[in-house]
Amino acid sequence: MTRFRVAIHIVPRRGLLDPQGKAVSDALHSLGFAAVGDVRVGRHLVLDTDAESAEAARASVQRMCEQLLANPVTEDFHIAAVESA
Amino acid sequence: MTRFRVAIHIVPRRGLLDPQGKAVSDALHSLGFAAVGDVRVGRHLVLDTDAESAEAARASVQRMCEQLLANPVTEDFHIAAVESA
Repeated sequence: MTRFRVAIHIVPRRGLLDPQGKAVSDALHSLGFAAVGDVRVGRHLVLDTDAESAEAARASVQRMCEQLLANPVTEDFHIAAVESA
Repeated sequence: MTRFRVAIHIVPRRGLLDPQGKAVSDALHSLGFAAVGDVRVGRHLVLDTDAESAEAARASVQRMCEQLLANPVTEDFHIAAVESA
């Protein structure tokens, strides 16, 4: 068993309203960052897990995203990196 | 001016308590993912901005993080990618 560190991005699906992103965009405009357009706010998870291989770790994290971490109706997830920890 | 899409990761500083990460870790254990260890939950922002160059976009986003997006006491930020949108 090896310990892997996995990075996951979970973002609101494109086309859905993202009120938090809108609030950030408005706040940046108020601070003078006029060049800012669309902002999307999602979650960045870093998770340590033991697995036989990087592929097994990725498959396990995929199941975690489907079962708990991401909302399948409103969010997309992406496993960004799997590294030995 | 070119439009750039910038990805930012904002994570709780290592060593600080991350109650959300602890809750996720406990929930994953309850679901049978016993191999999961530490979990850190941060934010993943994707932001569109106009700038003269990728370097200018990165510098601008660095200032946004310092002024608004990240809490300098409890969080670390990392500009993960700057791409033409």
